[in-house]
Amino acid sequence: MGSHSLPLRLHEGDFMKDSSGHIITEQFPASKKVYEKGTIHPDVRVPMREISLTNGESIRVYDTTGPYTDPDVKIDVLRGLPQVRTQWIEDRQDTESIIGRSFKPEDDGYDVFKDHSPKIDQFKRPIRRAKPGANVTQMHYARKGIITPEMEFIAIRENMRNDALREKYFDAEREGRLKGNSFGASLPDEYTPEFVRSEVARGRAIIPANINHPELEPMIAGRNFLTKINGNIGNSAVLSSVPDEIEKLIWGVRWGGDTMMDLSTGKNIHTTREYIIRNSPVPIGTVPIYQALEKAGGLAEDITWDIFRDTLIEQAEQGVDYFTIHAGVLLRFVPLTAKRVTGIVSRGGSIMAKWCLAHHKENFLYTHWGEINEIMKAYDITHSIGDGLRPGSLADANDAAQFGELETQGELTKLAWEQDVQVMCEGPGHVPQHMIKRNVEKQIEDCHEAPFYTLGPLVTDIAPGYDHITSGIGAANIGWYGTSVLCYVTPREHLGLPDKQDVKDGVITYKIAAHASDIAKGHPSARLRDDALSRARFEFRWHDQFNLSLDPDRARELHDATLPQEGAKTAHFCSMCGPKFCSMEITQQIREYADNMEKGMQEKSQEFKDKGSEIYHKDEETV
Amino acid sequence: MGSHSLPLRLHEGDFMKDSSGHIITEQFPASKKVYEKGTIHPDVRVPMREISLTNGESIRVYDTTGPYTDPDVKIDVLRGLPQVRTQWIEDRQDTESIIGRSFKPEDDGYDVFKDHSPKIDQFKRPIRRAKPGANVTQMHYARKGIITPEMEFIAIRENMRNDALREKYFDAEREGRLKGNSFGASLPDEYTPEFVRSEVARGRAIIPANINHPELEPMIAGRNFLTKINGNIGNSAVLSSVPDEIEKLIWGVRWGGDTMMDLSTGKNIHTTREYIIRNSPVPIGTVPIYQALEKAGGLAEDITWDIFRDTLIEQAEQGVDYFTIHAGVLLRFVPLTAKRVTGIVSRGGSIMAKWCLAHHKENFLYTHWGEINEIMKAYDITHSIGDGLRPGSLADANDAAQFGELETQGELTKLAWEQDVQVMCEGPGHVPQHMIKRNVEKQIEDCHEAPFYTLGPLVTDIAPGYDHITSGIGAANIGWYGTSVLCYVTPREHLGLPDKQDVKDGVITYKIAAHASDIAKGHPSARLRDDALSRARFEFRWHDQFNLSLDPDRARELHDATLPQEGAKTAHFCSMCGPKFCSMEITQQIREYADNMEKGMQEKSQEFKDKGSEIYHKDEETV
Repeated sequence: MGSHSLPLRLHEGDFMKDSSGHIITEQFPASKKVYEKGTIHPDVRVPMREISLTNGESIRVYDTTGPYTDPDVKIDVLRGLPQVRTQWIEDRQDTESIIGRSFKPEDDGYDVFKDHSPKIDQFKRPIRRAKPGANVTQMHYARKGIITPEMEFIAIRENMRNDALREKYFDAEREGRLKGNSFGASLPDEYTPEFVRSEVARGRAIIPANINHPELEPMIAGRNFLTKINGNIGNSAVLSSVPDEIEKLIWGVRWGGDTMMDLSTGKNIHTTREYIIRNSPVPIGTVPIYQALEKAGGLAEDITWDIFRDTLIEQAEQGVDYFTIHAGVLLRFVPLTAKRVTGIVSRGGSIMAKWCLAHHKENFLYTHWGEINEIMKAYDITHSIGDGLRPGSLADANDAAQFGELETQGELTKLAWEQDVQVMCEGPGHVPQHMIKRNVEKQIEDCHEAPFYTLGPLVTDIAPGYDHITSGIGAANIGWYGTSVLCYVTPREHLGLPDKQDVKDGVITYKIAAHASDIAKGHPSARLRDDALSRARFEFRWHDQFNLSLDPDRARELHDATLPQEGAKTAHFCSMCGPKFCSMEITQQIREYADNMEKGMQEKSQEFKDKGSEIYHKDEETV
Repeated sequence: MGSHSLPLRLHEGDFMKDSSGHIITEQFPASKKVYEKGTIHPDVRVPMREISLTNGESIRVYDTTGPYTDPDVKIDVLRGLPQVRTQWIEDRQDTESIIGRSFKPEDDGYDVFKDHSPKIDQFKRPIRRAKPGANVTQMHYARKGIITPEMEFIAIRENMRNDALREKYFDAEREGRLKGNSFGASLPDEYTPEFVRSEVARGRAIIPANINHPELEPMIAGRNFLTKINGNIGNSAVLSSVPDEIEKLIWGVRWGGDTMMDLSTGKNIHTTREYIIRNSPVPIGTVPIYQALEKAGGLAEDITWDIFRDTLIEQAEQGVDYFTIHAGVLLRFVPLTAKRVTGIVSRGGSIMAKWCLAHHKENFLYTHWGEINEIMKAYDITHSIGDGLRPGSLADANDAAQFGELETQGELTKLAWEQDVQVMCEGPGHVPQHMIKRNVEKQIEDCHEAPFYTLGPLVTDIAPGYDHITSGIGAANIGWYGTSVLCYVTPREHLGLPDKQDVKDGVITYKIAAHASDIAKGHPSARLRDDALSRARFEFRWHDQFNLSLDPDRARELHDATLPQEGAKTAHFCSMCGPKFCSMEITQQIREYADNMEKGMQEKSQEFKDKGSEIYHKDEETV
């Protein structure tokens, strides 16, 4: 097995295949990739997926798959994705190419057998950093009134108005009846580049986009935009490899991951991350303390600011778009966790708690916050301020430790904003349904509407093996209440490292939760896809029903398991009820019936009114 | 293949096996069946499952599996389950054995090949009916102040206080912080037989228990009790067989189905139902109009009151515990569905709508309501008043047709109560999250707190193949708001007839939703199992974590996929993070650390206070 065997294994024929030989890059059925161009920035090309229906209609849907579903792009994970943002970054003239920090043995773990890990030298690219004194964050530009290409890209992407279809489907009674409840958010009817700019300027939305991640297709997270989802990937000390993780990345964005976090804690951390970033069309987040711990030989108390700072620079230069830093785990909060049922369940949180106690000093991430922000602003890395004391069981929800840290997250948010650094805040965890809303309200208040990013929450602890569902329930609720990013939980949570199937199950479940949130909060274009699918369902356009669904493969597979014939794809029934009992079919008969009776009805109407409100006849009631 | 081949195939060795050879009746791991006895009625024996933990603790959980997990009961589906209620019914001396309506060819569909369907003659049992003029409903007894054995059974079953464990785990701060929000329900601290009686008397709870279903272990549904779930089984004209359906029944109650509906619409309807009822420890519901339609040759307009009445009697004598009757689909509501996106999606609703239009007459179920109640009260069959006009898409949620029918359900509820007939009301369907609560509020108001029974609701239409999840989200919400029974939706919804795996996925998802609801509404004993599992998790008692979970098989399987060794069952990590990164392990180190430092801490406390609220030092902030 040569040093390049891994990436080559992923590249066969026209489509990329995974390790089991399944194609993971072909376009979805009846779909094509289309691009909408910018007007302020004509080189902005926003990708969308257009689904063609059998009745001549078509609908565009938000597309996170990047070039992987574009037949015009040749994918080669050895070279990485096309760099769509390079010109935009260069045009701003506030960055410079630097030599950068060179690769060190400890970046991948000292004892890695180098021969077995894939090379990364072939990713030839300049390393970029802000010119001395410059601030290159999207927030900084926004506050200066500049609409960047990233902002225009996002405005077009969020809009997805499908105006023709919208007009066709429109019914005033219905739209009024279904009006959303956003709990005080300010969703516009139409997204403009200026709206995007203003939301970023006030910190209510973020655009995670490191200048060293030019492969990125910009996305936004904020309560006034589509709810986003994050998928966690990454290896552990006992499982997985670089090719496994690239598969999970491509698989994750295929099914709708808006961002992905590389949470690798095993060997080859640096190399794995390089492959992930170079091949990711979505923002990549990390928890730098994981790698810092490896560099400190696995001993939390041996982590120093220098090790951590070095790790931030290393990852900043690679292009990580957002960092989870557990700066809110203050020394005084640690004793508050002692009586908890499950103590501290955040890995970063427990590392920092251990560090604080070992040194009996305040969390060095907190005391170096200003310095951290100086790094963040030189690359435009967004904070995802860690919630190291999130509850790990229902019993610990909304307690003093959790809320103490949340208040500190608010304090840290304000300080970051003073340096024009973008911020979102992480949240729980495990929370009973009736205590979820309080989390959002307090986060909005304490953190001044900085986007909230929550893990679930799980609404019960008793279903390991199904925690995508226990947490999907909480996610749908918390998304509706105002959370901007829902971090997925997979069926493997609490039990082991997720595999590729877990990634898909997690992503699909969270797409459901995010979409349900968008409908409930009243996002202007969310419900259109539901309406299109329901119309297809009612008209027995089975192919359209499959193709409009979040997972066309599975919908078709479950249907075809009992009625595989092509004729069944236009049949007015399925195996659930069989031909005689289909209510939708009967309804269609009723409609025809009703049309034919229209005239007759008018004649009968007087008779009708006579019976009117007293249709129920007492004399017929007794046996 | 002989006429008895089916049931024999299900009965092999000590445990019953399904058609794939999987055992479907063995006890869950580390669990045993225990019985708690009644005091008012000493012959009441309430089954519970007791799970033993490796630390010496044990916890009792609600057990829907009936005799299938009792090693002392010999299961034989040819003979049916033991008749635990016969003596109770006989003791009341208000029923008589009758010859009953004999089996007719049309009951199973005229063209059935009789040789291929299993015999049912071997189920020798008296057919029972109320003596002339008698009313044998649990509501009737309740209103007369009688505490029946069924009521005491339920009080013990709902309580499940686990007092020893509760006391051990109790922490006043925690219980106060986690106090539920029941939206005006009246959950007691402890369930007494008198409380059960009073709730049934006022119609706020139901005990579905036909006197011809003596195999039943009584259960209750009401907003002041544990939230229950229903699983739908039954064949269709194109799929399934009697043995398949018995498998689904046993599988459904194994994973937690509190009631099951037999929605068969194919052939052998009568025979299938007989096998299901005789072998069901939980209440069985049906939609009688399905069979009436078969008897009318599949033509809705040819259904007559006589055919329907005959079907009610047939099913009443078999022992169906609750009937879904679509009496609220009034003629004047039908035109309100014409502009809907998905028209009428309830099968019963569409049949009745078609009937109404064809005859241009009021729904005969509505006009014969009093007569129907006379039948219900002679067998104690509970109404599950159908929602024939429930929305089949988000677009149709909460519209005039749906709410018009709901108001009529309220009217019908009052009329049934005048005859001491028990009632619950069916509800939607497809409803966006923000419109769910209104459904419960309106149902409580219009239907006078009669238990609500909802199908989901699905919170988005775009995920066929995952509708257990889209609907599980809605179910968790609506259960919290006050719904008493959550009718499951399986992954196969909209695509085909559920198979055995679908039944399990649906049941587990709905157990999650129901349990999350109970925690949120503040059921007094709901959270104990979560706490027990979380403690096991924190202490790395992996076996206990698996055994306490809703699906021990799956939890163990997912864990063992990466760490199969027995040693890993006490290891302080899993494959997710590996040995160095386990936050729970680090927390335990922190606790020891903190204990050791207790004294030192006191010395440091003054220094601590000095730093106090101004821990963050400006001078450390700059780079």
